[in-house]
Amino acid sequence: MTNTIPTPSVPAPDIVRCAYMEIVVTDLDASRKFYVDLLGLHVTHEDETAIYLRSFEEFIHHNLVLRKGPLAAVAAFAYRVRTPEDVDAAEAYYRELGCRTERRRDGFVRGIGDAVRVEDPLGFPYEFFHEVEHVERLHQRYDLYSAGELVRLDHFNQVTPDVPRGRKYLEDLGFRVSEDIKDADGVTYAAWMHRKQTVHDTALTGGDGPRMHHVAFATHEKHNIIQICDKMGALRISDRIERGPGRHGVSNAFYLYILDPDNHRVEIYTQDYYTGDPDNPVITWDVHDNQRRDWWGNPVVPSWYTEASLVLDLDGNPQEVHVREDRSEMAVTVGADGFSYTRAPGDAMLGEPAEEIGFKMGHQL
Amino acid sequence: MTNTIPTPSVPAPDIVRCAYMEIVVTDLDASRKFYVDLLGLHVTHEDETAIYLRSFEEFIHHNLVLRKGPLAAVAAFAYRVRTPEDVDAAEAYYRELGCRTERRRDGFVRGIGDAVRVEDPLGFPYEFFHEVEHVERLHQRYDLYSAGELVRLDHFNQVTPDVPRGRKYLEDLGFRVSEDIKDADGVTYAAWMHRKQTVHDTALTGGDGPRMHHVAFATHEKHNIIQICDKMGALRISDRIERGPGRHGVSNAFYLYILDPDNHRVEIYTQDYYTGDPDNPVITWDVHDNQRRDWWGNPVVPSWYTEASLVLDLDGNPQEVHVREDRSEMAVTVGADGFSYTRAPGDAMLGEPAEEIGFKMGHQL
Amino acid sequence: MTNTIPTPSVPAPDIVRCAYMEIVVTDLDASRKFYVDLLGLHVTHEDETAIYLRSFEEFIHHNLVLRKGPLAAVAAFAYRVRTPEDVDAAEAYYRELGCRTERRRDGFVRGIGDAVRVEDPLGFPYEFFHEVEHVERLHQRYDLYSAGELVRLDHFNQVTPDVPRGRKYLEDLGFRVSEDIKDADGVTYAAWMHRKQTVHDTALTGGDGPRMHHVAFATHEKHNIIQICDKMGALRISDRIERGPGRHGVSNAFYLYILDPDNHRVEIYTQDYYTGDPDNPVITWDVHDNQRRDWWGNPVVPSWYTEASLVLDLDGNPQEVHVREDRSEMAVTVGADGFSYTRAPGDAMLGEPAEEIGFKMGHQL
Amino acid sequence: MTNTIPTPSVPAPDIVRCAYMEIVVTDLDASRKFYVDLLGLHVTHEDETAIYLRSFEEFIHHNLVLRKGPLAAVAAFAYRVRTPEDVDAAEAYYRELGCRTERRRDGFVRGIGDAVRVEDPLGFPYEFFHEVEHVERLHQRYDLYSAGELVRLDHFNQVTPDVPRGRKYLEDLGFRVSEDIKDADGVTYAAWMHRKQTVHDTALTGGDGPRMHHVAFATHEKHNIIQICDKMGALRISDRIERGPGRHGVSNAFYLYILDPDNHRVEIYTQDYYTGDPDNPVITWDVHDNQRRDWWGNPVVPSWYTEASLVLDLDGNPQEVHVREDRSEMAVTVGADGFSYTRAPGDAMLGEPAEEIGFKMGHQL
Repeated sequence: MTNTIPTPSVPAPDIVRCAYMEIVVTDLDASRKFYVDLLGLHVTHEDETAIYLRSFEEFIHHNLVLRKGPLAAVAAFAYRVRTPEDVDAAEAYYRELGCRTERRRDGFVRGIGDAVRVEDPLGFPYEFFHEVEHVERLHQRYDLYSAGELVRLDHFNQVTPDVPRGRKYLEDLGFRVSEDIKDADGVTYAAWMHRKQTVHDTALTGGDGPRMHHVAFATHEKHNIIQICDKMGALRISDRIERGPGRHGVSNAFYLYILDPDNHRVEIYTQDYYTGDPDNPVITWDVHDNQRRDWWGNPVVPSWYTEASLVLDLDGNPQEVHVREDRSEMAVTVGADGFSYTRAPGDAMLGEPAEEIGFKMGHQL
Repeated sequence: MTNTIPTPSVPAPDIVRCAYMEIVVTDLDASRKFYVDLLGLHVTHEDETAIYLRSFEEFIHHNLVLRKGPLAAVAAFAYRVRTPEDVDAAEAYYRELGCRTERRRDGFVRGIGDAVRVEDPLGFPYEFFHEVEHVERLHQRYDLYSAGELVRLDHFNQVTPDVPRGRKYLEDLGFRVSEDIKDADGVTYAAWMHRKQTVHDTALTGGDGPRMHHVAFATHEKHNIIQICDKMGALRISDRIERGPGRHGVSNAFYLYILDPDNHRVEIYTQDYYTGDPDNPVITWDVHDNQRRDWWGNPVVPSWYTEASLVLDLDGNPQEVHVREDRSEMAVTVGADGFSYTRAPGDAMLGEPAEEIGFKMGHQL
Repeated sequence: MTNTIPTPSVPAPDIVRCAYMEIVVTDLDASRKFYVDLLGLHVTHEDETAIYLRSFEEFIHHNLVLRKGPLAAVAAFAYRVRTPEDVDAAEAYYRELGCRTERRRDGFVRGIGDAVRVEDPLGFPYEFFHEVEHVERLHQRYDLYSAGELVRLDHFNQVTPDVPRGRKYLEDLGFRVSEDIKDADGVTYAAWMHRKQTVHDTALTGGDGPRMHHVAFATHEKHNIIQICDKMGALRISDRIERGPGRHGVSNAFYLYILDPDNHRVEIYTQDYYTGDPDNPVITWDVHDNQRRDWWGNPVVPSWYTEASLVLDLDGNPQEVHVREDRSEMAVTVGADGFSYTRAPGDAMLGEPAEEIGFKMGHQL
Repeated sequence: MTNTIPTPSVPAPDIVRCAYMEIVVTDLDASRKFYVDLLGLHVTHEDETAIYLRSFEEFIHHNLVLRKGPLAAVAAFAYRVRTPEDVDAAEAYYRELGCRTERRRDGFVRGIGDAVRVEDPLGFPYEFFHEVEHVERLHQRYDLYSAGELVRLDHFNQVTPDVPRGRKYLEDLGFRVSEDIKDADGVTYAAWMHRKQTVHDTALTGGDGPRMHHVAFATHEKHNIIQICDKMGALRISDRIERGPGRHGVSNAFYLYILDPDNHRVEIYTQDYYTGDPDNPVITWDVHDNQRRDWWGNPVVPSWYTEASLVLDLDGNPQEVHVREDRSEMAVTVGADGFSYTRAPGDAMLGEPAEEIGFKMGHQL
C-alpha cells in the first residue's frame, strides 16, 4: 500500500467544504439520545431507519445522518462541490484513478440530489454533491439555543497508515495543508488539510486504516464546550468523555473528544484561525513536542491513538484495515519507548537561566 | 496524634474569612515572575526580602506575602476577625488549648496591625488579625485587568492526617462543613469548611501533615482560567500545570492547579455556590465516586495526592510531618488497590436499561 | 412622611438574606411563559392560582411566587432569618414600631413555615421566616442548565420618596450600606444595603413610593445575560428589554432590565463583589457622574426612573403612593434641567492634556 | 452620479480579503494610545510619521496603518489578491473603467510589495496587492493576549449615496451579497458583501459619500468586547463609546462601535457565520424592522447614521462628498417621519393572541 497515488489528467472537482457524514449506528434510540438530547443537534427529518441532523447555523439539509444498521461504521464522508458539473468532474477524476464509483442522480440520502460516491485510493467512502435542499438556518433562533450549542460541522479526521501518501492524494484533490506533525527523520504522523478557510476540512492521522478517527462540530465559545462536559457529568456518563477539554497545539482550537454509544468519536471544537490566504504559513510540529496535541501538556489517552471507526465500501461492507508500518506517534512519545519535551534543551523557563527539559508525562498515572 | 482536641471554655474568635497566606520562597525573582508576570497579582509593596500582593477586588493590604528564605514553606495562614477584641479572644482561646502563641501589637507583616500567631493543635501556623491598612480596591480598574485576572483570595487547603480530629477543632472555632468525602466504613478523606458564604475558607485533606496543600484565588469566569493555561503553554511551562482545568464534583467550581517555582501549589477557582444559610445542606461524597474530584471523571495525578508544602512553627522551623494512618484516598481509588465508579450499580445511562458500571481509569495511561 | 423612624428598644431579627418575592400577576399563563419558558426558572409547585419558582442553585422551596390576581402588584418581600426565634424578634420589633403585623404559624405560602408579615414604616409588605421546605438543589443538574440560566436570587429594589429615612430604618434592622448616590448638596438619590456578603439584598431608589422597582436574579457569567437578550430578540419581544445590557458603575455588576407581562421589572445581574468584611469601604457616587448607573455611559431610559410596581398591604389592597419631594435623579441628570459628566473638569483623557468634560447624552436621541 | 457603472470586458482581479486600511490621523501619539494602549493592537513597525499595526492572528505585515497628517481621512482600503498577476488584472480593470490608477512596484507602504491604488467609481481609494512581508503570527502568544484582544481584521464599511449602484460595481468585482436592508418600495439602505467566507469584507451604507463608516476588528468571544467597554469606563472615556455593545440583526454578530481621537469609527465584532457556499442564502431585512440593526431593539444613535470619515484621492486631497438622494434610514425609522416595529402586525408575542405592534423607540430619550 506504499505505492504513490497518481495525479489524474482531468481536473479535480472544486470542493467547497466538508458537508456531512453518514454513520451507521446499532441502536437508533441510543444514538438519538446522544446526538439530540445530549448534544442538541437539530432534527431535519427522522424515521425508523435514519435521523438527519443539522447544526445551528447550517442551511443545507443535514450535517450528520444516523442510519440504523448491524455494524457501527462510517458510510460516507460527504463534501459539497461548487457546481453541479463538479459532480461530473469528481466521477471522472476517480474513474481515472481506477476507483470504484457509483452515481445517483437522486442522491444517496434524503435532502441531497445528484451525487457520486467513491471508494477512494485510501479506502474511504467519499461522496461529492452540489444539489441540496435548503432548510431554515437557525442562526438567530436563540429560543432553541442550548448552553452547549453546536453551530457548525467543522471537519472530519481519517486514520490512514501512510500519511504522506494520503496527503499527496488530497493535495491533488485541491486540499491545502495548514499544519502537520513530523519527526527529525522525516516521518509524518499527521496532517491537517483544508478547502474552506479554517485549519481543516479533513485531517489524516497516522494509524491502521482506513478508519474514521472523529467528526467535529464547532461551538461559538469555550464555555459551550465546558457545558457539554458538565452535562455529561450530570448524566453520569463522564466515562464517555475520552479526552479533554483542552487547547490543541495544532490548530490552536479549544477541544473535547467524546464517544457516542457505538464508540464513534465526536470532537467539539472552537476558535481555530483563518487560513484563506494562498500563502497561509504551514506549521510543522515536532512529534516530541509535548504541547503539539495539548498546549497545556495534558496527556493523550492511549485509546485516542488506537481506537477508530470502521468505514464501509459501496456495498456496505467494512473495508479491510491495513496496519501502519511507520512509527506510531503513541510509541515515540509515551511510555518506555517514547519521550516528549515541554521546552527544547537550552530554553529558558520564565526568563530564568536554562534548565533541564520539563517533562510532564512522568508524574501522570 | 489521635487524641481529641478539647473545646475551650472561652468563646472562639469571630472569624470573618481567610485573608492572606505568608509563604517562604527561595528565589524572590522567580516567584515574582510567577505571581506577578504570569498570574497578574498586584504589588502593594515590595522590597529585597518580601513582596506583598493582592487580588483585583481586594481592599486590604494583601492576600499573599512572598518572603525570601532558605526553605520553601508556609509561615502563616491568616484569618481576619470581626473586631479588635477578637484578637484577644483568639489569644485566650489558643492559650486554653495549650498552644504556643505570639502576640504582636504592630503585626507580623506590613499592612497588618495587632495580631496573634499560634501553633495550632494540628501543627499549623494560624494568624488572627483585625487591624489592616486599606488600599485601593481595583475592582473597576479595567485598565489593569488581565485576561486571566485573579479577583479574590478564595481559600486555603491543609493536609492533616486525621480529618475528623481537625474537623472537630475547626467546627469549635466556628467553621461549618459544606461538603466532605467519606467511604462506607466511615473513613473521612477530606472536608470543606467555611466562615464566609462560599464553600470554604479552608479545607482539610487527609494525608501526611501538617502541610499546606494549596492556596486558591478566584477568577470571574471560566475563560480566565483557560487563559492562564494558554499563557503557561506560550511560556513553555505547561509542565507546571499539575492538574486540570476541570470541574470539581465537590464545590462544583471550575478549577486549575499549578505549581510555583518552589512547588507551592496554587489553585485557580471559579463559581462555587452560596452557603450562607444556617441549614445549608452538607454534601457527602463517596470516595469511590469517580466524579467527586473531577465531575468529568478526569484522573487525579498522584502528585496531587502526595505532594504538599511544609509549614513553619513560630520560630521559623519546619513542623514535623506525621504520617496519615487512615486509608489513603489515592490508594482506595487508583491502581491495583482502588476502584472508582462513574455510575452506581443499577444506574441507567442516558435513560437506557442499567448497564455495567462505567470505568474511566482503565483507559488512562 | 419626613419624620424619622425610631430605633426600637428590642433587638432586630438576624436577617440572613433576601429569600423570595411574592408578586401578583394578572395572567398566570403569560407569566409562566415569561418566567419558565423564557427565563428558565424551575417550577417547585404550580396549581391554578400560583406558581412557585426557584433558581438553579437554590435549596429552599422557592425564590419567586406568581399569584394570580386582579391587580399586578407585590404581595411580599420575604427575608430569611437565622433562627425560629428571629421570627418572634421580628414580630416584636415591628410591633414596637407601631406597624401592623400578621403572624401565621403555617406560613403565608407553600413551602414556608412560621412567618410574620408586616406593613413596614416605608409602606412595604415585608415577611420574615426561618422554617422552609428544602428541595433538590439543582446546582449540578447541568442536564437542566439553559444558556441563560438564573442561578440565584440576588436582591430586591424598592422605590421610596425619602432615601435617608429608609436607610436609617434598614440600618437599624441590621442592613449595611455598600454604595450610594448623592449630590454636592447632600441629597441622597439611592442606597444599596446588604445582609449577605454581596453588594445588596435590597436597595432604595428615590422616587414616588412605596413601589417595587425590580427583583434581581444572578447568572454565572456575562454571556448568560446576553443569551437572554438574544432569546428575547428571537421571540420578537425585544421591546420588553427596557435597559441594558450594560455594566453598572454602582455594584460593578453586569446587568439587564426586562419587563414581565405585567410590567414587573426583573433585573438579570452578575459579578458584583464581596462585602463581608465589617469595614467594607462604602462607595459614594456623584449623581452627575455619567458612569454611575452605566459604566459605559449609555443613557438610562426615562421609564426606568419613573415606572415601578405597586405594593400591597396585608389585606391585599395597594398601598398609597407618596410623591418624592427631593430632587429627582432623572431631572438632575437628563434633559434641560440636568447634566452629567464623563470626566471631572481638569481630568486628562488617555493621559493627554486636560480637555473639556466629555458629554455623552448630547448625541443620543 | 446615478449612472450605472459598466462591467469591464477584462476579468476582475481575484480578491482574497480585506487586508488593511491606511488612515490619516492628526496626532500620532493620541492615536497610538487608542490603538495600542487601549485596544492592544500589535506594533509591527513605527517611526515618527507612521505606525503599522496588526491583530493577534495576522501573519501579513499589518492590518492598519496610522499615518500622521493634517486632515483626518482614509488613504486606502487595501485588499489582498490571490496572485501577483491579479495586481495587473486590477490595474487593467480600473483603467477600462476610466478610473485614475497608480502602480508602485515597491508598494505604497512598508511591508507591502507591488500594488496598485485606484480612485474607484464610487470615489474610494482602493488598493490591490499580493506581495507582502510575513511576520510572526502571534496566535499562540498568549503571553501577549489582552483581555480585549483583537484577533483579526474583519471588514470595512463604506458610505455611498447610491447603494444599488455600488453593489452592482462590487458584484462585478467578485463580491457577493450576504445581507441587505430594503423597504417595500425597493429602496436599498445598505448591503453587506464578501470575498472571504464571512458576512462581509466590506459593506455599503447609504448616505452622503464617499466616506468611510468604520473599520472592524474581530475578537474571539463576547466577553472580550465587554472588556473593551469596561476599560474605556476605567479610563473615563466612555463618551468615546458611540453605540453598543449589542447583537446585530444583520450578520448576527455581537458588536461595539467606538471613536478614535480623530473620530474615525472602529467596530469590534464577533461571531457572524460561514458564507462560503455558492448558494449561501441572502437575507433581506425590512428597514422598519426594529431588530435589523440591533437584535435587542436598542436605538441607533443619530451620529452613527450621520458621521463618517473623509476619504482621500491619490494626491491626498479629500474626495468631494455627494449627498444621498434616496430616503435616509434614520429618517424613515426614527422620530417624526419614521417608524419601526418589533413584531409584524398580527404576530403573536410569547405565543399569546396577536397584540399591537411593539414599539421600543417611544420610551427612549
